[in-house]
Amino acid sequence: MPDGRKTFDDYDQADHPDSPVVRFGPDAALRLESGAVLESWQIAYQAYGVLNADKSNAILVCHALTGDQHVANENPVTRKPGWWPLMVGPGKPLDTNRFFVLCPNVLAGCMGTTGPASMNPATGRPWGIDFPMVTIADMVEAHMRLVDHLGIHRLFCIIGGSMGGMQVLQLASSYPDRVFSAIPLATAARLSAQNIAFDEVGRQAVMADPDWRGGRYLEQGTRPSKGLAVARMEAHITYLSEAALHRRFGRQFKEHNHPDFSFDAEFQIESYLRHQGVSFVERFDANSYLYITRAMDYFDLAAAHGGLSKAFHKTPTRFLVISFTSDWLFPTSDSRVLVRALNAGGASVGFVEVESDRGHDAFLLNEPVMFKAVQGFIDANAQMKGIA
Amino acid sequence: MPDGRKTFDDYDQADHPDSPVVRFGPDAALRLESGAVLESWQIAYQAYGVLNADKSNAILVCHALTGDQHVANENPVTRKPGWWPLMVGPGKPLDTNRFFVLCPNVLAGCMGTTGPASMNPATGRPWGIDFPMVTIADMVEAHMRLVDHLGIHRLFCIIGGSMGGMQVLQLASSYPDRVFSAIPLATAARLSAQNIAFDEVGRQAVMADPDWRGGRYLEQGTRPSKGLAVARMEAHITYLSEAALHRRFGRQFKEHNHPDFSFDAEFQIESYLRHQGVSFVERFDANSYLYITRAMDYFDLAAAHGGLSKAFHKTPTRFLVISFTSDWLFPTSDSRVLVRALNAGGASVGFVEVESDRGHDAFLLNEPVMFKAVQGFIDANAQMKGIA
Repeated sequence: MPDGRKTFDDYDQADHPDSPVVRFGPDAALRLESGAVLESWQIAYQAYGVLNADKSNAILVCHALTGDQHVANENPVTRKPGWWPLMVGPGKPLDTNRFFVLCPNVLAGCMGTTGPASMNPATGRPWGIDFPMVTIADMVEAHMRLVDHLGIHRLFCIIGGSMGGMQVLQLASSYPDRVFSAIPLATAARLSAQNIAFDEVGRQAVMADPDWRGGRYLEQGTRPSKGLAVARMEAHITYLSEAALHRRFGRQFKEHNHPDFSFDAEFQIESYLRHQGVSFVERFDANSYLYITRAMDYFDLAAAHGGLSKAFHKTPTRFLVISFTSDWLFPTSDSRVLVRALNAGGASVGFVEVESDRGHDAFLLNEPVMFKAVQGFIDANAQMKGIA
Repeated sequence: MPDGRKTFDDYDQADHPDSPVVRFGPDAALRLESGAVLESWQIAYQAYGVLNADKSNAILVCHALTGDQHVANENPVTRKPGWWPLMVGPGKPLDTNRFFVLCPNVLAGCMGTTGPASMNPATGRPWGIDFPMVTIADMVEAHMRLVDHLGIHRLFCIIGGSMGGMQVLQLASSYPDRVFSAIPLATAARLSAQNIAFDEVGRQAVMADPDWRGGRYLEQGTRPSKGLAVARMEAHITYLSEAALHRRFGRQFKEHNHPDFSFDAEFQIESYLRHQGVSFVERFDANSYLYITRAMDYFDLAAAHGGLSKAFHKTPTRFLVISFTSDWLFPTSDSRVLVRALNAGGASVGFVEVESDRGHDAFLLNEPVMFKAVQGFIDANAQMKGIA
C-alpha cells in the first residue's frame, strides 16, 4: 500500500498472526458438526488483564462476522484501534484492571485461527474451498479448547454481539456449568429467513466474481475483491437504520446541490458505501466471509434441542439480554423470544432494550445505557463471586 | 431456451416490441432534464378498452422499476400473464369495459420505449452506456407525448405503485390541469438514503461483472447476467417483508431436515432467490436496470419545488394515496409526508393504509382492501365526470 498500511494480500495473518497462538495436533484434532475432522489446527487470540490465582476472573469476548480478536488493541492490518474500546479496557465495563479478558479469532476466520485462508497441511496449499464447513457450535468448541488450554474451568462471563451473541448462547447452552454469566447483545437464537437471504446474496456476489476462481483464488494469485466489496456494501446497509442513514447522509450530494447525471458516486451515501466495500476487502478473506455467513445461516438453537427453552433447561448461568430498538437485522422481537425461553427454562435473566436509532451496529457504538447495563450486571456478579 | 421460452437475448423487444409503438423524429425531439436531447425516439405501450368520444375515460397506468407495458395481457417474453391482472380488466377496479386503460413502457426501459438497449441511430449500434441519463420527469414527458399523440387532453386517472407512483406524483405536479384523479401506491415523493444505498449496491453488482464490458456488452455479445442476478436477488429481499419470508420459507431446508454443509442452495429461501435472479436476467436489460434505478435515486419532488406542498399548490387533481403496513422500502411514513403536503397544498386527498404483512410487493398482490379503495375512488370520480 502506498501509505504503508498492510493489507490482507501482503500480510499473512491467517497462518502467522500478530497474536498469541495455540496449536493443536492430531492428538487434539477438532471433530466438526459436519463430521469432518481438523487433524491439525490453531487458534489465535488476544488477552488483556491478569488471570487471578483461582482463575475465576476470566471474561470471554466473542466477535461478530467480520470482527477479530483485536478487541482492545490496535489492529495489525488496519492500524486502527480495537473494535470495542468503550467496552474493554482499564475502568471500562469489562475492566481489565479486574478481569482477564480473552478474545479468540473464530474458526474459519482469517486472522490466525484456522480457516479457508490457512495452509492445508495435507497439501501445503491454502485450504480455500476445501476447508470443511463449520458451525457456531464448532466455533464454540474451538474457543473451549483455548479456555481448557489456559486452565480456566469456569468463565466468569461470556459476552458478544450479533454472531458473537450466537456463540454466547451456544456456549451457555453446551457448557452451562462452565459459564457463570452471559451477555448476548443484538442477537437471536436462530437466523431469520430474511437474514439467510441477505447472506446468500452476499455469497452469490463473491462467487459471481470470476476472480473467486471456484474458491481457489489464493493459490491462483487473484482476489474476488469486487464481489466481496458488493457483499460488504449490501451487508453494511443492514447494519444501520434508515434513521441513521437519513441523519448522517440523507439525500446529500457529494459535490454540488444537484445531480451530475452519472453512475459515479454522486450521493454521499454512495461514497460511504463504496469506501466500506473497498476498505473491507483489504482486511478480510472472501472465503472466510462465505464460511462464516454459512455458519450463521445454520444457527438454530431451538431446532437443535427440540425447543428453545430446552436449550437452557435449569441452566445455572445468569443472563443479561440486550437489544436495540432500531436494529432490524436482529430485532428486539428475537431477543424477546430468547428471554421467554430462558424464563421458561428457569434461568435468571435480565433484559434491556436500549433506545437507539443507530440500528444493529449500535452495540459497537457509544450507547451509554448499554454500558451502564453491562457495568451493573458485571459488578453485581463480581461481588457475588467475590472478585475484587 | 430448451423449453421454447423466448429470452431477452434472442427477442429484440427493445427496438421491435410486440406492442404498438409511436415514433418521434427530430421535429419532436425529447429534451431531457440533463440537457441531452433524444433526436429520434419511440414509445411502446399497451391499451385496453375503448376511448370514448370525448376522450374523457382514459386511465394511465405507470409501471414500476422492472415492470413493463404488459399490465393485463400475456407478456411476450415470459409468456406469463400481465403484472396487474386483478386491477385491470373487464369488471376489475380499472374496468376495461368502461375505461380506456393505457400503459406505456418507461423511457430507458427495454420493452420497446427507447432506452440503452435500443439502437442509437447516430451509430447504428446499441446505445449502451452512451444513452443519456433520464429522470422520472423525463419518463413523464415521454408519457405525455403519447397522451398528446392519442389526442387525450385530460386523463381521467393516473395510477401506479412504487416507481409508478413516482411518475404519478411527477405527472400530477407537472400537469395538474391534465389529470382529474391520481392514485400513487406504495411510493414516496423522494427516494430515501437507504433506498439509494440498495440501488447503488445493485448497480455495483452489475458493473462488477466483467461481462458488463464497461456498459458495451450488447455490441460485444456478452451479458452481465451474474451481476444482474445478484442485483435482482438483493432488490427482491426489499420487496418482501420479514413476516412474508418467514411464513413462506422460514428456515425450511430444500431437501432434508438438516444441513448438507455446502454452498448450494440448501434453504428454500435460497432457491427462491436464485430463481428470481435467473428468471429476471432472461427478461431485462442490465443497463436499463442501471438507468432506471438512477432515475429513482434522483427523484425528489420537494427539492425540485422548494417544498413538497408547493409541488401541489392549489392542484385541482383528486388524490387517493395508498400504503401498506409492512412495506419497509416505501413505508407508510413516506405516504403520510405526501398526504400532509397535499393537504397543505389544498388538494382533495384520501389516504388508505392497507393492513398487510406482504411488504412492498403487496400492491401487486391480492389485497382486497386496496381493490375496494381503488374501486370506490374510481366509481365516485366516474360518476362526477359522467362516465357511464
